[in-house]
Amino acid sequence: MLPSSASQDELVLLPLGGAGEIGMNLNAYGFGPPDDRKWIVVDCGVLFGRETETPGVDIIMPDIRFLAERREDVLAIVLTHAHEDHIGAVGHLWPELQCPVYATPFTARLIEDKLFEAGLAERVRINIVPLHGHLNLGPFSIDFISITHSILEPNALAIRTPLGTVVHTGDWKIDPDPLLGEKTEINALRKIGDEGALALVCDSTNALVQGHSGSEADVRTALTDLIGTLKGRVAVTGFASNVARLDSIAKAARVHGREVALVGRSMHRIVTAARDTGYLADFPSVISEEEAAQLPPDRILYLCTGSQGESRAALARIAAGDHPTVSLGPGDSVIFSSRIIPGNELGIHALHNKLAALGVEVLTVEDHFVHVSGHPAREELAEMYRWVRPQIAVPVHGEMRHMAEHARLAKSLQVPQAVVVENGQMLRLAPGRAEIIDEVPAGRVFLDGRIRVHEGEGFARARRAMGFAGFIAVTLVLDQRGRPAADPAILFEGIPDAVHAPVREAVAETIRRHNPRRGDEQELAENVRRAARRAAADAWGKKPVTRVETAWV
Amino acid sequence: MLPSSASQDELVLLPLGGAGEIGMNLNAYGFGPPDDRKWIVVDCGVLFGRETETPGVDIIMPDIRFLAERREDVLAIVLTHAHEDHIGAVGHLWPELQCPVYATPFTARLIEDKLFEAGLAERVRINIVPLHGHLNLGPFSIDFISITHSILEPNALAIRTPLGTVVHTGDWKIDPDPLLGEKTEINALRKIGDEGALALVCDSTNALVQGHSGSEADVRTALTDLIGTLKGRVAVTGFASNVARLDSIAKAARVHGREVALVGRSMHRIVTAARDTGYLADFPSVISEEEAAQLPPDRILYLCTGSQGESRAALARIAAGDHPTVSLGPGDSVIFSSRIIPGNELGIHALHNKLAALGVEVLTVEDHFVHVSGHPAREELAEMYRWVRPQIAVPVHGEMRHMAEHARLAKSLQVPQAVVVENGQMLRLAPGRAEIIDEVPAGRVFLDGRIRVHEGEGFARARRAMGFAGFIAVTLVLDQRGRPAADPAILFEGIPDAVHAPVREAVAETIRRHNPRRGDEQELAENVRRAARRAAADAWGKKPVTRVETAWV
Repeated sequence: MLPSSASQDELVLLPLGGAGEIGMNLNAYGFGPPDDRKWIVVDCGVLFGRETETPGVDIIMPDIRFLAERREDVLAIVLTHAHEDHIGAVGHLWPELQCPVYATPFTARLIEDKLFEAGLAERVRINIVPLHGHLNLGPFSIDFISITHSILEPNALAIRTPLGTVVHTGDWKIDPDPLLGEKTEINALRKIGDEGALALVCDSTNALVQGHSGSEADVRTALTDLIGTLKGRVAVTGFASNVARLDSIAKAARVHGREVALVGRSMHRIVTAARDTGYLADFPSVISEEEAAQLPPDRILYLCTGSQGESRAALARIAAGDHPTVSLGPGDSVIFSSRIIPGNELGIHALHNKLAALGVEVLTVEDHFVHVSGHPAREELAEMYRWVRPQIAVPVHGEMRHMAEHARLAKSLQVPQAVVVENGQMLRLAPGRAEIIDEVPAGRVFLDGRIRVHEGEGFARARRAMGFAGFIAVTLVLDQRGRPAADPAILFEGIPDAVHAPVREAVAETIRRHNPRRGDEQELAENVRRAARRAAADAWGKKPVTRVETAWV
Repeated sequence: MLPSSASQDELVLLPLGGAGEIGMNLNAYGFGPPDDRKWIVVDCGVLFGRETETPGVDIIMPDIRFLAERREDVLAIVLTHAHEDHIGAVGHLWPELQCPVYATPFTARLIEDKLFEAGLAERVRINIVPLHGHLNLGPFSIDFISITHSILEPNALAIRTPLGTVVHTGDWKIDPDPLLGEKTEINALRKIGDEGALALVCDSTNALVQGHSGSEADVRTALTDLIGTLKGRVAVTGFASNVARLDSIAKAARVHGREVALVGRSMHRIVTAARDTGYLADFPSVISEEEAAQLPPDRILYLCTGSQGESRAALARIAAGDHPTVSLGPGDSVIFSSRIIPGNELGIHALHNKLAALGVEVLTVEDHFVHVSGHPAREELAEMYRWVRPQIAVPVHGEMRHMAEHARLAKSLQVPQAVVVENGQMLRLAPGRAEIIDEVPAGRVFLDGRIRVHEGEGFARARRAMGFAGFIAVTLVLDQRGRPAADPAILFEGIPDAVHAPVREAVAETIRRHNPRRGDEQELAENVRRAARRAAADAWGKKPVTRVETAWV
């Protein structure tokens, strides 16, 4: 083990998001001695909130205070690809770093929307890096290496430093025929392996999945065949960002004499962005929803947002029967050309049930080959390790179960070191053996409504407690001598009626028993709070969140 | 179509639970003319609440007011098997019906616990029906037909009436080697088919699943092989009620020289119940958790509760490191011999992640053959239809997507009529074509803490709203002339601090502007409520639940 010294150059990796969760990816690489390190940030994504865990919070992002405190030394944000879990936080967090942003053309095009929404379109210039491009950022020399994934322009980064080369994969798979865009630059990856790679920092999402993820080309064939068997209206939903898939579906529609209508804002946004950056030149021309409504059922295919059951998306509105132009019924079909993101099961099943109740046939990946994952299964991971042959494997982009299994797999592939790191742990990659040398503040920042709050501030947790057991608000009205000047006001929310009377009685009884002396009102308030909760627990079996306030007259 | 007439006998099916959801199964069969019908109730189960949909509600049961209003005509509750979604509501709902309860010995043994918990052990006598037994209940003559499922003593019911025979399957699969208990009485089912069956009322759970569910015997072999490959401590978790599986795991432990310790209350309860009713005679003798802690890691196997991520179950406590006697670490393994019940994904994944963080290897159905479903896949459904050959197929025990697909399948198998019914719809099975002839009150009753509330009363919904946007309680303190006598008391819960000042200011401003006239306090309260919500929305982007109360001095 080499001790850190103030003057010695080190290469460190600091994950602040994505190590231990799928989403909100943000990895920082630092180079230099501890007291004079330069940093680059790779990706800057969000995580989507869950009602069970973080009620009322839609968007979660990494706590980057460590980087914000040394923002003069943060040279750049480099983005690998345009998925929300890699770019979604740029519009929120850029003001804390105020550094240049680098991305390839399609990614840059999509991120402009985010910056516009954040009111930053004027201030932030996105530096466009061509495919296979190169960047020099202080001690870091970065090559963009084209890979394949489920979006246009995914890139791995070869990050070269005086202490060695790190291959940061971003999200990837090995798709021999991705239909749109580049294929995996296998030779570039092999060449880095030949030169000698220090570390591979790699996607763990599907480290538990045997075999191979499959190719977009096979999905195209299967979807084309499937759509050919369907009679009535056909709607297909999926991830709008998978442009190759949209192209496959549109072309399949054309093969079977169906016109394509895009339904939902994201569909229009992505198709426009792809065209603006030179893709989809032969995408079939689409018709409007209104034109579609005039066609016979077997002449139309709707390409819809909402595959995750999102309540405001097109498909949810169609299933609820309140979409302005699209309606489906008996004889029609909906294809879910997507997987279920964990946590969305009940919402998606509810959507299936609503469609089934309309008489619509629902076709999913459970019973038809209509989707492939964008992440590497174990055989693909093994292939990547054979190409790059790193000294150190660092699993990222996964929950602990994925990262632990990924590390086991890397060891079984003879990688000398495999290190599982969590957000906030600073991993020295060189010199010497890879080792966690520091732990910095990290965590989750919630976008709660429009206000940013740290997870630790507990507003979502407080709301979850009310969600479980309701809320009692008691206001004591006291005179200047601390004597009750009026009946207390008691508000109940989310609490069965039968609980109200016993609580009112307990509060009244506590006040009656109180010997009023000015200055004791805090004791009274606390006694009232406890008596109210105890009475609720006796009557109901649950203890509501209870707060007591005093009004002085 | 035959019109109903007051004097004509009819046979009707009335699902009050389970038709449109998986859980809370309760189907009533009625026979007689509309004004003098006798009823039997088949199964009486609960549904487990979800934090997203019904925060703070663990147990949901059917609204049986229709039956309670005619309880003198309810002849019996007949239970097919002992799963919670078939028996869990007996202890809650029996007082509304107060009729005899019938069950086979193992089911009866488990239900006694529930009645004891409900304080009904003295009042309710469970009538034990032997396997292959027979019951005469007014116009209903019922044969218990042994089938196979994932619990001991599952039964289908052949319900014979003067207007025809209904086969009510309960939950089932075709397991050629269920290991414990009876095999499917295929001949009995075929014989009913030969005689001519009116209707098959049948499990839809896996109507979307191709092929065959597989056999417990195959799981036993696979688990035995898998456990043989593991080195350190082994813990296996699964559904305690699957006694054959427990037996398989215990025997696999023995084959590899491991002692078995049961961890968790349900494990002890079920093993005792099975032994008390004559099963598990050759179950290996178990050791205590304390004894297990003294053994070398490769000599012990823990059989644990908690496969669904339940926070208070044994495995969650082990994973959190706070189980009193059991601890796991690097080199140890946990096998999840179970599937994920939809909606539990995030909790189970969190449990996997905690175990992975301890260095424990997690083995699941995703990568190992360690579980088979207890419900019929499509080939098994087809087999059942070939045996019974009903005139009418009635899919039950499923969400709409399962029931719709089940009906499609039945039609493809040449069943003359397949009818999808929802809870509360009364389906006339005979005479004439099957037809929905009435709709009765139905719905969900929540056990909210210890209090029973109807879903429509909205307490869980009110709590969900607070979970999303928090709560503001304002108490106005007014004198007898309606003038403010003190500053208002304002309580915020679950709302970011930055929102408080604007809300306080808006409330103060509204009060200042108010022209106090006695009798206007409701108008003032409403103005204050609106001003507070508007101020919160401006500052935060969300509108908290806001209530205003007045205290008079």
